[in-house]
Amino acid sequence: MSPATESLRVDGHRLWRSLMDLAAIGATPKGGVCRLALSDLDREGRALVTGWAREAGMTVTVDQIGNTFMRRAGRDNALPPVVTGSHIDTQPTGGKFDGNYGVLAGLEVVRRLNELGIQTEAPVEVVFWTNEEGSRFVPVMMGSGVFAGAIALEKAHAARDTDGRSVREELLRIGALGDEEPGARPMGTYFEVHIEQGPVLEQHGIPIGVVLGTLGVRWFDCTVTGMEAHAGPTPMAVRRDALQGAAALMQEVVAIAALHPPHGRGTVGMVQVFPNSRNVIPGQVKFSVDLRNASDALLDAMAQDMRDGAARLAAATGLQVVLEPVSSYPAQPFDAGCIDAVERAAQALGHASLRLVSGAGHDAVYTARRAPTGMVFIPCKDGISHNEAEDALPAHVAAGADVLLQVVLAYAGRAA
Amino acid sequence: MSPATESLRVDGHRLWRSLMDLAAIGATPKGGVCRLALSDLDREGRALVTGWAREAGMTVTVDQIGNTFMRRAGRDNALPPVVTGSHIDTQPTGGKFDGNYGVLAGLEVVRRLNELGIQTEAPVEVVFWTNEEGSRFVPVMMGSGVFAGAIALEKAHAARDTDGRSVREELLRIGALGDEEPGARPMGTYFEVHIEQGPVLEQHGIPIGVVLGTLGVRWFDCTVTGMEAHAGPTPMAVRRDALQGAAALMQEVVAIAALHPPHGRGTVGMVQVFPNSRNVIPGQVKFSVDLRNASDALLDAMAQDMRDGAARLAAATGLQVVLEPVSSYPAQPFDAGCIDAVERAAQALGHASLRLVSGAGHDAVYTARRAPTGMVFIPCKDGISHNEAEDALPAHVAAGADVLLQVVLAYAGRAA
Repeated sequence: MSPATESLRVDGHRLWRSLMDLAAIGATPKGGVCRLALSDLDREGRALVTGWAREAGMTVTVDQIGNTFMRRAGRDNALPPVVTGSHIDTQPTGGKFDGNYGVLAGLEVVRRLNELGIQTEAPVEVVFWTNEEGSRFVPVMMGSGVFAGAIALEKAHAARDTDGRSVREELLRIGALGDEEPGARPMGTYFEVHIEQGPVLEQHGIPIGVVLGTLGVRWFDCTVTGMEAHAGPTPMAVRRDALQGAAALMQEVVAIAALHPPHGRGTVGMVQVFPNSRNVIPGQVKFSVDLRNASDALLDAMAQDMRDGAARLAAATGLQVVLEPVSSYPAQPFDAGCIDAVERAAQALGHASLRLVSGAGHDAVYTARRAPTGMVFIPCKDGISHNEAEDALPAHVAAGADVLLQVVLAYAGRAA
Repeated sequence: MSPATESLRVDGHRLWRSLMDLAAIGATPKGGVCRLALSDLDREGRALVTGWAREAGMTVTVDQIGNTFMRRAGRDNALPPVVTGSHIDTQPTGGKFDGNYGVLAGLEVVRRLNELGIQTEAPVEVVFWTNEEGSRFVPVMMGSGVFAGAIALEKAHAARDTDGRSVREELLRIGALGDEEPGARPMGTYFEVHIEQGPVLEQHGIPIGVVLGTLGVRWFDCTVTGMEAHAGPTPMAVRRDALQGAAALMQEVVAIAALHPPHGRGTVGMVQVFPNSRNVIPGQVKFSVDLRNASDALLDAMAQDMRDGAARLAAATGLQVVLEPVSSYPAQPFDAGCIDAVERAAQALGHASLRLVSGAGHDAVYTARRAPTGMVFIPCKDGISHNEAEDALPAHVAAGADVLLQVVLAYAGRAA
């Protein structure tokens, strides 16, 4: 009596209800969620989700960084599992969908498989990774980074919040310090569904994004130094106005993005002017530079353009221009097979889809270092996330989970 | 036995000593002065200067805004006096010369006339105006503004500092609330010597600046509003980056100054970016605009260019651009006769001089509404003022006072 795979659908209403139930833990008056990593509210959220998993017959394993794997056995449990999930910690003024959607979509897939009595060849695991947001403890994507070996466990344990409490202390305190060595368990494939956090799908009216990978990021701090002087008595010709130099270089950041299409991005988000007084020519300006692109070679070229622009400005104006690297993340392409599988699933379900690159980081960036990885995006309202106004349509939430169900079945295999 | 006027010189050492003595009241560890208007220290400074004036045989009259007139009688006291002076309040991190120099140069002229036994036809008055700096109480140039009828006495009295204390209360408290109605006394001519507060004289190696007038000022606040969005997931083509628009308009401020030479000046001194986060495209940027020029017609043209630039930016980018006037001061040309007199005096003394326009405001801006007015500038180190590092050379300090002595004698007339 097992239906054809293509006709399978999750229970969108149940998934939506679960999202709303989880969002009640840490709900903010403006309709968002504040559930910081390893807080009391995180403990409550973890308990709710693992409780649901146990009700669904899954076994729960926690590793030493608090990553939590909820496993549905397969027919052949020697096979590496198909893993799906995301995170349930939020930004201080976060929304209901970022991360939570990926975890609960995985749970909904399992619930639906249970209802339909479908056994898979390989096991299926739903995971939530610890501290993806990085709001309370840096670095971001901590749990998946430790799992992938990109972040040392000891370093992650030692990270402290602004009150001086360490990750290890807080893991212990909320009962999320497991025994398993991070990264010890096998992972056959990894899929993560997520809201896009950008405007592209919504603007194109397309419900499913097939994610090709994530952009690499280079962060710099730029400091332009001139000479502070009074706006009145200082003729234009003798000024050394740090802000005018900085403004030209800020525009260069965007010009550099345009020189490296189609995925080049350049942003100046943060500016400080000294002394920042109405009638004083600024003596110094500091600003941030965020460069992104789809390959490390392109990022190298963009960073070189930025250094060249800084040097040209200094030579042309006599201003001192210092460009300091702050941090960088490499570009992470996803697995070609996983990408195709997501696209085929959308097609089989009759959903229009668009191939796109993720500009934001996700836990999938780190799992891709361990196993073939793919991601599914759905539109979010006005492209907004990390904001209490974050929102998504129930139909899109269901569609993304439907795609996940297809690819999980495709990779785990349907037992006869 | 009276010497020829051209050979007269002040006592530069005595003037320098008086400057240093006055600078000891409110001296800061970094070598500057903090003597805010109507503070206890201002009371001490006023007492020191009026004490010196009385020692020099002068009579002292204080008006209802605390402006203090120290008078040396002439042969014909029915003639309106030749008035000279400036202010003795300072910025919180001010220097020894700004204002103080103009007052003590006037006092030194009187001391020297006394020593030489020179009587003038008209009386000579040395004035210090209340609260020129505007650091503690706004508006700036308060005392001279009230004297000239540009600021209502009641409004000035009602101005309060950040602790809630009013000008009137503080005038009473420090004993500087006089009886005389501001502006009631006659003023035949007004001369003010001052450090340049800019780099021009120093860069040209010229000791005397012949001031043609002061630039008018127009202040605006500009707000550029776009759409806040994440730097990662938002493609360049769909961004509404408020900072990129603002940067272009900041450059326009300087371009507008260049379009209205030789005195056009444009400065952006203050910038605020929202939300000012490294990986968020700015949704809003606010910045100040300071436009200056030598005539109100030129200022009108510059303000129109600014409005046109804002409108062009809005049309080209879809950003919302709002330009709000904050305040304005008209350009104030000085009296042609006074200008010539200053220039002739420098020449007679063998000092190179340069005609220039003051970019900063001075009490002379307001006296020019009441009487023919002229100003004498001397160089200051690196053009720096409103700073504890403010400095000037003793030779220049003496040269400026020598010029003042010449013009005072020229306008007051030497009694037979």
